[in-house]
Amino acid sequence: MMQKLPHIVTLTTDFGGDGPYVAAMKGVILRDAPGTQLVDVSHVIAPQSIREGAFVLGSAWPWFPKGTVHLAVVDPGVGTERRLIAVSISDHWFVLPDNGLVGLVARRRTIDAAWSLAWPDDRPVSRTFHGRDLLAPAAAHLARGGDPAELGQQCTDLVSLDWPLPIELGPIVLGEVIFRDYYGNLVTNVPAAQLIGPGWGLEIGGEEIRNLVGTYGDRPPGSLVALEGSSGLVEIAEVNGDAGRRLGIGVGATVTFRREFPR
Amino acid sequence: MMQKLPHIVTLTTDFGGDGPYVAAMKGVILRDAPGTQLVDVSHVIAPQSIREGAFVLGSAWPWFPKGTVHLAVVDPGVGTERRLIAVSISDHWFVLPDNGLVGLVARRRTIDAAWSLAWPDDRPVSRTFHGRDLLAPAAAHLARGGDPAELGQQCTDLVSLDWPLPIELGPIVLGEVIFRDYYGNLVTNVPAAQLIGPGWGLEIGGEEIRNLVGTYGDRPPGSLVALEGSSGLVEIAEVNGDAGRRLGIGVGATVTFRREFPR
Amino acid sequence: MMQKLPHIVTLTTDFGGDGPYVAAMKGVILRDAPGTQLVDVSHVIAPQSIREGAFVLGSAWPWFPKGTVHLAVVDPGVGTERRLIAVSISDHWFVLPDNGLVGLVARRRTIDAAWSLAWPDDRPVSRTFHGRDLLAPAAAHLARGGDPAELGQQCTDLVSLDWPLPIELGPIVLGEVIFRDYYGNLVTNVPAAQLIGPGWGLEIGGEEIRNLVGTYGDRPPGSLVALEGSSGLVEIAEVNGDAGRRLGIGVGATVTFRREFPR
Repeated sequence: MMQKLPHIVTLTTDFGGDGPYVAAMKGVILRDAPGTQLVDVSHVIAPQSIREGAFVLGSAWPWFPKGTVHLAVVDPGVGTERRLIAVSISDHWFVLPDNGLVGLVARRRTIDAAWSLAWPDDRPVSRTFHGRDLLAPAAAHLARGGDPAELGQQCTDLVSLDWPLPIELGPIVLGEVIFRDYYGNLVTNVPAAQLIGPGWGLEIGGEEIRNLVGTYGDRPPGSLVALEGSSGLVEIAEVNGDAGRRLGIGVGATVTFRREFPR
Repeated sequence: MMQKLPHIVTLTTDFGGDGPYVAAMKGVILRDAPGTQLVDVSHVIAPQSIREGAFVLGSAWPWFPKGTVHLAVVDPGVGTERRLIAVSISDHWFVLPDNGLVGLVARRRTIDAAWSLAWPDDRPVSRTFHGRDLLAPAAAHLARGGDPAELGQQCTDLVSLDWPLPIELGPIVLGEVIFRDYYGNLVTNVPAAQLIGPGWGLEIGGEEIRNLVGTYGDRPPGSLVALEGSSGLVEIAEVNGDAGRRLGIGVGATVTFRREFPR
Repeated sequence: MMQKLPHIVTLTTDFGGDGPYVAAMKGVILRDAPGTQLVDVSHVIAPQSIREGAFVLGSAWPWFPKGTVHLAVVDPGVGTERRLIAVSISDHWFVLPDNGLVGLVARRRTIDAAWSLAWPDDRPVSRTFHGRDLLAPAAAHLARGGDPAELGQQCTDLVSLDWPLPIELGPIVLGEVIFRDYYGNLVTNVPAAQLIGPGWGLEIGGEEIRNLVGTYGDRPPGSLVALEGSSGLVEIAEVNGDAGRRLGIGVGATVTFRREFPR
């Protein structure tokens, strides 16, 4: 007899780690799909920041096994007419509001199908907590191996993610900081692969950095460096320090890349 | 053969998320009850705030399946003569200090039975960490399906929760903020059902709000609104903003509800 | 048929709780060792603080069952020539950079064997995220019951932890604060057993404290007390308050113990 493995549901929200909201969603999942393995991605996405949620979800999901259900709730429109959706991509499920949150996943992989969640007529639904009352039951249904057609109608034309793209102006690329991590490293929206070659550099917060290093330890502590981060994007870091604090900047700050940086 | 499901133990503490204390409790549970599924509710209850612990536990527990064991530790009296108890309510277990922490659960449901935990004579007990040395082993015992009578003597007369009730003064109801969540929403102690009807409003932090809205998205971003939160209590929120920061107030602040609000 | 229990992997990092990094490691572990039970110890170790990581890991691990794999990543040298190691101690596994992080475990127990992780030649390895690309797969291999010899060569001479020891100067012992917890309690590097006996006391941040109390509740709220914490080390606490804030000090502050404190 093959031992049945637990299904995995990951959770990404802006609910905070201090209240009862995340636990309530987990309780619903374990009630509807007993034995499910729950994995927190983050619950401290900046409130209502679909963009940050999309970045964190988009960086974490590829490392999970096929069949994983990713439940994500950053939902400024809760209780209004926006759709809730279940999206199948590369044998993973994404259960979330249709507001662009799945946008970075969908940019790199093909959407195989999507369903718009129907409103249940057999139980009450709070107008302020659809994560608990609609999304968590849908995630549990899929974790149990349930048929997505039972959740609602198939749908297309998902809402696009409002995502800043790097802007090319001749020898200049204007990028933007999209995430500041716990170390104070500043992740930009510029893929490192776009900048391979000698002679380029960047300006951020009034400081200049020449070329990418391979890793933090390639420069002495206190150095400001740029490098390819673990998601393939250019990151600005202070070796063993906090670049965000040093430069006094965070998400949304401009980074000016020059392909022919003056020497 | 029916596959045996893992038992669930939830954890609610004021231990913080940064130290070894929560993990030590989890290690003890997994040592005594291997395979138990552990679910964090919160570990950042305000230090020694039995009231906040009671609110968070009281809001999260109903969503878990029957048979769940809820371990909660907010324990200003650790090491003194207060009792540690295991309480059976609606087929859930609550294992916690007898200081009112289970008070909101017990207010809405009947206590079926309670046991006072006996001191073990076969192992050492730290005077500063009863969560690890007494409560976690008791929770593991119950998660394994153990007999509560082996934990100690049955008891009654649990300590009451010091909980602020709304005060009615004719057409005025004085309420209080009991929780400020990650969004900055201010949860009050006033059940929304108490305020149904036209013409009422409230004052908080010098601002007036008229009537409840159904959900955040019913008003434009930046609006200050009052609504029924997911626990049935009136909440003050700024749409896509932080009401606590805007009003400069937090837990303990007064909210004045008027049933016949002047127009 | 004996039901096979899931293996346990604990995680201790300085990755922060806000980004995709911890989840990526968990995804890798669940991909390589399905069904593994994951337990977070802390992900908010002060960035690059090997000493704090060693303290938290060293306090949490003994409470887990034998066979547990402890994955820890505080790694200022990521991408440079430092070794990554798997260490067997008292039937637990420790998978971490060879930078002293396992030092407090190794100080109290015998290292049974250690392996230096070999570089894989069948998959890419990021230069900035060895936790995901090298350590997590090694932890999963051991959680599956894999042979450690498949991970690399056995090794000895692990890097020592740079750990402050109490300094004895006749009747004076100079100690140091090594951890400030969520309550603001200040954990020192001085074992309480070293200070048993009447007439001693201590000075910290300009305040004097006489003798150890048994637990917080032995003095009224607001009192500054010293006591034996749950790890056996002397802790400074304010009863129901925040000693770190009151004294304005944190990790690294000096504590002067006097065995013959003037009365």
